Amino acid sequence: MLGNTFGRLFQVTTCGESYGWRATEKEATYGGALLTIVNGVPPGLRLDVKKIQYELDKRRPGQSKLDSPRKETDRVEVVSGWLEGVTTGAPVGLLVRNVDTQDVHIDQYRQVKDVVRPGHAEVNFFYKYGEYGDWCGAGRASGRETVGRVAGGAVAKQILAREGVEVLAHVVESHGRKGRSIAEGTMTFEEMKANYRKNELNCCDPQAAEGMIADLLKVRQDGDTAGGTIEIVARGVPAGLGEPVFDKLKATIAHGLCSIGAMTALEFGSGFKAAGMLGSQWNDPPFVENGRVRFRTNRCGGFLGGMSNGEDLVLRMAVKPTPTISKPQDTVDMTTLKAKKLEAITRRDITICPRIYPVAEAMVAIAILDALYMARAWYGLARLDPKWEKLTQPRHKGDYTV
Amino acid sequence: MLGNTFGRLFQVTTCGESYGWRATEKEATYGGALLTIVNGVPPGLRLDVKKIQYELDKRRPGQSKLDSPRKETDRVEVVSGWLEGVTTGAPVGLLVRNVDTQDVHIDQYRQVKDVVRPGHAEVNFFYKYGEYGDWCGAGRASGRETVGRVAGGAVAKQILAREGVEVLAHVVESHGRKGRSIAEGTMTFEEMKANYRKNELNCCDPQAAEGMIADLLKVRQDGDTAGGTIEIVARGVPAGLGEPVFDKLKATIAHGLCSIGAMTALEFGSGFKAAGMLGSQWNDPPFVENGRVRFRTNRCGGFLGGMSNGEDLVLRMAVKPTPTISKPQDTVDMTTLKAKKLEAITRRDITICPRIYPVAEAMVAIAILDALYMARAWYGLARLDPKWEKLTQPRHKGDYTV
Amino acid sequence: MLGNTFGRLFQVTTCGESYGWRATEKEATYGGALLTIVNGVPPGLRLDVKKIQYELDKRRPGQSKLDSPRKETDRVEVVSGWLEGVTTGAPVGLLVRNVDTQDVHIDQYRQVKDVVRPGHAEVNFFYKYGEYGDWCGAGRASGRETVGRVAGGAVAKQILAREGVEVLAHVVESHGRKGRSIAEGTMTFEEMKANYRKNELNCCDPQAAEGMIADLLKVRQDGDTAGGTIEIVARGVPAGLGEPVFDKLKATIAHGLCSIGAMTALEFGSGFKAAGMLGSQWNDPPFVENGRVRFRTNRCGGFLGGMSNGEDLVLRMAVKPTPTISKPQDTVDMTTLKAKKLEAITRRDITICPRIYPVAEAMVAIAILDALYMARAWYGLARLDPKWEKLTQPRHKGDYTV
Amino acid sequence: MLGNTFGRLFQVTTCGESYGWRATEKEATYGGALLTIVNGVPPGLRLDVKKIQYELDKRRPGQSKLDSPRKETDRVEVVSGWLEGVTTGAPVGLLVRNVDTQDVHIDQYRQVKDVVRPGHAEVNFFYKYGEYGDWCGAGRASGRETVGRVAGGAVAKQILAREGVEVLAHVVESHGRKGRSIAEGTMTFEEMKANYRKNELNCCDPQAAEGMIADLLKVRQDGDTAGGTIEIVARGVPAGLGEPVFDKLKATIAHGLCSIGAMTALEFGSGFKAAGMLGSQWNDPPFVENGRVRFRTNRCGGFLGGMSNGEDLVLRMAVKPTPTISKPQDTVDMTTLKAKKLEAITRRDITICPRIYPVAEAMVAIAILDALYMARAWYGLARLDPKWEKLTQPRHKGDYTV
Repeated sequence: MLGNTFGRLFQVTTCGESYGWRATEKEATYGGALLTIVNGVPPGLRLDVKKIQYELDKRRPGQSKLDSPRKETDRVEVVSGWLEGVTTGAPVGLLVRNVDTQDVHIDQYRQVKDVVRPGHAEVNFFYKYGEYGDWCGAGRASGRETVGRVAGGAVAKQILAREGVEVLAHVVESHGRKGRSIAEGTMTFEEMKANYRKNELNCCDPQAAEGMIADLLKVRQDGDTAGGTIEIVARGVPAGLGEPVFDKLKATIAHGLCSIGAMTALEFGSGFKAAGMLGSQWNDPPFVENGRVRFRTNRCGGFLGGMSNGEDLVLRMAVKPTPTISKPQDTVDMTTLKAKKLEAITRRDITICPRIYPVAEAMVAIAILDALYMARAWYGLARLDPKWEKLTQPRHKGDYTV
Repeated sequence: MLGNTFGRLFQVTTCGESYGWRATEKEATYGGALLTIVNGVPPGLRLDVKKIQYELDKRRPGQSKLDSPRKETDRVEVVSGWLEGVTTGAPVGLLVRNVDTQDVHIDQYRQVKDVVRPGHAEVNFFYKYGEYGDWCGAGRASGRETVGRVAGGAVAKQILAREGVEVLAHVVESHGRKGRSIAEGTMTFEEMKANYRKNELNCCDPQAAEGMIADLLKVRQDGDTAGGTIEIVARGVPAGLGEPVFDKLKATIAHGLCSIGAMTALEFGSGFKAAGMLGSQWNDPPFVENGRVRFRTNRCGGFLGGMSNGEDLVLRMAVKPTPTISKPQDTVDMTTLKAKKLEAITRRDITICPRIYPVAEAMVAIAILDALYMARAWYGLARLDPKWEKLTQPRHKGDYTV
Repeated sequence: MLGNTFGRLFQVTTCGESYGWRATEKEATYGGALLTIVNGVPPGLRLDVKKIQYELDKRRPGQSKLDSPRKETDRVEVVSGWLEGVTTGAPVGLLVRNVDTQDVHIDQYRQVKDVVRPGHAEVNFFYKYGEYGDWCGAGRASGRETVGRVAGGAVAKQILAREGVEVLAHVVESHGRKGRSIAEGTMTFEEMKANYRKNELNCCDPQAAEGMIADLLKVRQDGDTAGGTIEIVARGVPAGLGEPVFDKLKATIAHGLCSIGAMTALEFGSGFKAAGMLGSQWNDPPFVENGRVRFRTNRCGGFLGGMSNGEDLVLRMAVKPTPTISKPQDTVDMTTLKAKKLEAITRRDITICPRIYPVAEAMVAIAILDALYMARAWYGLARLDPKWEKLTQPRHKGDYTV
Repeated sequence: MLGNTFGRLFQVTTCGESYGWRATEKEATYGGALLTIVNGVPPGLRLDVKKIQYELDKRRPGQSKLDSPRKETDRVEVVSGWLEGVTTGAPVGLLVRNVDTQDVHIDQYRQVKDVVRPGHAEVNFFYKYGEYGDWCGAGRASGRETVGRVAGGAVAKQILAREGVEVLAHVVESHGRKGRSIAEGTMTFEEMKANYRKNELNCCDPQAAEGMIADLLKVRQDGDTAGGTIEIVARGVPAGLGEPVFDKLKATIAHGLCSIGAMTALEFGSGFKAAGMLGSQWNDPPFVENGRVRFRTNRCGGFLGGMSNGEDLVLRMAVKPTPTISKPQDTVDMTTLKAKKLEAITRRDITICPRIYPVAEAMVAIAILDALYMARAWYGLARLDPKWEKLTQPRHKGDYTV
């Protein structure tokens, strides 16, 4: 298995899976750990463990009636890269133990280990790892893998905060029910922040949230699951981030978001609406404000030529329904290659939305920070008139309306 | 400028821009060249220059009344990596000269070089390259940059053909007018192939194409431009391509497609529709056919866990309207930071759709081939029972209906 | 700090430093951990924790009178990537705690934290990390960083063992006293193995070892330290590993070895002697034996065109004396930029040789395995007549004499 | 074939081989081209084509009686990345045509295409590329591949010149005859510059050069070839370049130099002598001069902890004799796997030294510039007190003695 690192200059490398197995020379037992190594952390940052824990708590299971009842504490331990609370420039190591590893659940997985869940990555794990693939809670194809993403993203967010950048996501659609959204101009960033994490779905439109949650409880009763849409906003991103050809910021953010298991679609700004528009309707008119170039509208979602333009980055990402459902499904036993009925048994989320938004925030944060490193490398060498770099700084917080 | 290489094991590196400037010790003149270096080409392939030229001709400007009237021959020359028509395993070098470099057009660009076109990458080039940025035809932010992508993709396609993989794209929406599509189950792959490149928009639904083209000619009369949607299908892709965490095939394909200048949204399979669906509706039921795992539906667009599942890959990508329009627009002069009116002058495409579909094909082909290399590397080392690799082979051509 | 990953397809990523600081939300204390994430481990390998511990024990301090008296247990815990003792294909996570973190030693470092040790990396840490750099036991510039290399190398060695490859190193020179060596044709690989780790210097020439150790004890009495030379041999390496231009196996092995802190020179085969030789003397004559190409001599050290030729890889690497000595030295205080006298206080090794040979083995093992992955990727795609790959297999064990 | 790119932020990608085959849709003929794409060139640099040509001329064959009589003009054409003589920030494309492609030489190669030259990479090309490998002048294993390295290095040198860095190499040993050298303290950098390229061997010790050349002419008469040693010096390199663990500057420079075909050994500073020294002898004493840290001696060759320390970088590299000799040699026919006698026919260099020193300069220049980019990226993010970066600046030119 390759591809366990994300980023070029700011890099997050992860390992660890759903249940895991730990062993020293003397003992061996279930309950391994998820490790995250964060490269490219600058020195002199007072790293706040509470803030890393806060991000991990966002995605922790078992917090509401919408989530899987699995109980993980997800306590993070910072084990390297700092001294007396301040980063040294060395890579930061993060350790999270798996604790909910009771035999009863492991036995459940063992019983159906050869029967693939429809809609799930498991079939591919057979192709790639044969009979050796991790059958225990989906191994590295489990949502538990995202602990490392969120841990790494939590470090990125603390560095970005020094640069005035913040990244937030919320739920704007659940099972077809839509809430107000920034991309559609029906919500401001301030409203989003004011209602952030105020309900168990993290839909920042309280009215819509109520209907969505009621609907989801009905879905659960039916033994089913539901899809939804996440909106992600990044404020304070300097203009000019991203490289012009293959590594546009759009491309590296898309790489990060499309690597999240359950995603099925991605829009930048007005997204698919652009397919119905004219150039005279789509182009965001630039103007000068306080000596900086701004745009009167944000149909491009903050990207020009795939690079940030100094306005808010606005993205939407569709998420498929959790594949594991309680209803009987037709499937296949991979060892016998015979048809098989599957009645799901394992614990699961009714909707992935409230657990995936922190993962989306993390991936976007890492991609932005990585692009910021590249931009700083470039400015260091390019020796341009410093006015150009100054012009890239985004507007002051709070002065923005869509 | 970094990020001029795409791929990990099969790699395409490009340079070259809209007009370019060439010089030897003795002479200097406009009209540089676009170079493409393709790494990872296997030995023993009878490389067909005509097929590379065919792909380049797809994206060549000046072919229809929808395109920019710019006249480029885009003649490709293969300069390395083969001997007597057969590849040697060495990197393949491809050379395309810029020929349409008349002073009249260069002067046009010079006159407005400090005034950014709304909706265009130019503003970011000022931030990144200051007064030194290439003002001539948008430099490397020009669609001309995609010559290298298509050239590299043309080599990838010839290698993929040996493996039984083909990648095709067509237009399914233009300025809000929709045609039939594979993702929506209203067209088969065979129909798509039968109508491929039969009209100047390359919309494989002939009735819809007629209406779209008539509409676009009206848009042109108004001095405007229009957006649209491209659908991309890859048939014959083995199952299990992509790495499970950060480098899922979905992620690397998204990286490639989202690095294309004009794209604004991307869907895999049923895409945004998944947000309104239940798990019992979305999950594609697996079954066994001729000893291989297949799926009764393809709502996932051929991706499970972000990796290929052996069915057709089906993607849709929205494209914004060409930013350059003839109507007067408000904009900014970057040197004075003063407001400015811009009346577009330069040549342009009415819609980017008929010129961008070959670029989309190229990026998807490169990403698939690169993932295939990774998979082969893995199988070589993993020493699994060969039955698992055999199971990944997609069904025979022609036996598929959505 | 970047560059904490080594390898392209088989990748080792590390973090952790000399003392470290660990913290959870509730507690903070000295004694962090060294984490290693190993990507690219094939599934189905029965991973032997004892063998990883064996490699770590090779480099553990405090084992003899030549080593630093620092007492570290270096107990490794495997926390991910396997299930019931067998690898799953997921990345393997390895955890080693720092335990020798007594206040007395930390205080010693604190007292001289601004005074750089001559010959040591510390001056560069000030430039790169300013006052935030890790002053505690040299942080990541400490030899302790090599725990991650050896842990990752121990996994590589277990995979290589399945392929019939073994990598061993020993000391062939200490403070100018030379022992017999394979590169000079005065020792066989079998002799080397027979005497491997039989004395505290791991010099496989017992007579020479005696004199070297007696000399080193005298050096210690004088408060001084000494340099030496390591010889590394890899047997069973298939021919054709390495890529022809920038990523020759020679180049990636050199990258790995020259990234070891104390190294000062590197030779392949006859090395510097080649500068005095004629082509007719240097060229190793090829011949055919049992249907495979072999070479009558091995002046090239097993590399042709920088790629393996199927014979033993033979390298030598010079190691400078441990920079920390007890004698008073002239140096500089980095905060005042004033001259300063330094009388070394901290614990140290008399010679780095007996602690660095396992690190050299690890780096060479990782580089070979990584090249093997690339070769397998290549063979998978190239579709050559399989006879060519078969020809690359090295001779059976034990049939080789220099 | 992979690994055709060198560098991380400043990247040189090359293709092209000894003879090559070019083809367009209409014509096909011998005489392809060598392409070089240079990524990471900053904007605003007045690129001097004459200086690129000067570097290429250094390594051009057929210039003296020591070289191969092959006649290549090696005319470079710059085809992208600049406008009106000034770089734009886009990648620079360089094109060099192969012209000496007469049938007589090609036929010579064809006759012996299955018979491997002892000491040459050819045997590995059979393993990797089978019967499809380029048999014409050794293809990409030919020294002609280094045209791309030197072209890329010539761009790096022009950027480094803006930063005050210069990189020069000369011959210090030929067939065992030694000249004066900087590493041994018997020559100053100024003397080296004064005698640079004054004789056909580019040995900057004129007396020694005379003897070496006379000896080499005798070697030629005998139909033989000879090895030698190159010394490389880089002056003006800021301190602190390189990353502390796997990507030390020493490691990336070693990667570059050990990827040059004919090299057999590498020393940094006092190199192998360190193996005979004590810590009290080896450590270079730091002191403060004009507010900057300097070192009284340079036994470490300008590297501490593998990173630059602000003093001159001093390296030596041994080069094996040209493998192609006129004397009859025992070898193997790869298709029949039978023994074969080979009497070399093709044109060759008596010693590679006078043709390889510009390649060594190029690789070192690229590695230094790449590390400089990484350092600038780091300083941009680290937000250290600027005094630390200021301290890294090397001393003024000309004030240095070993």
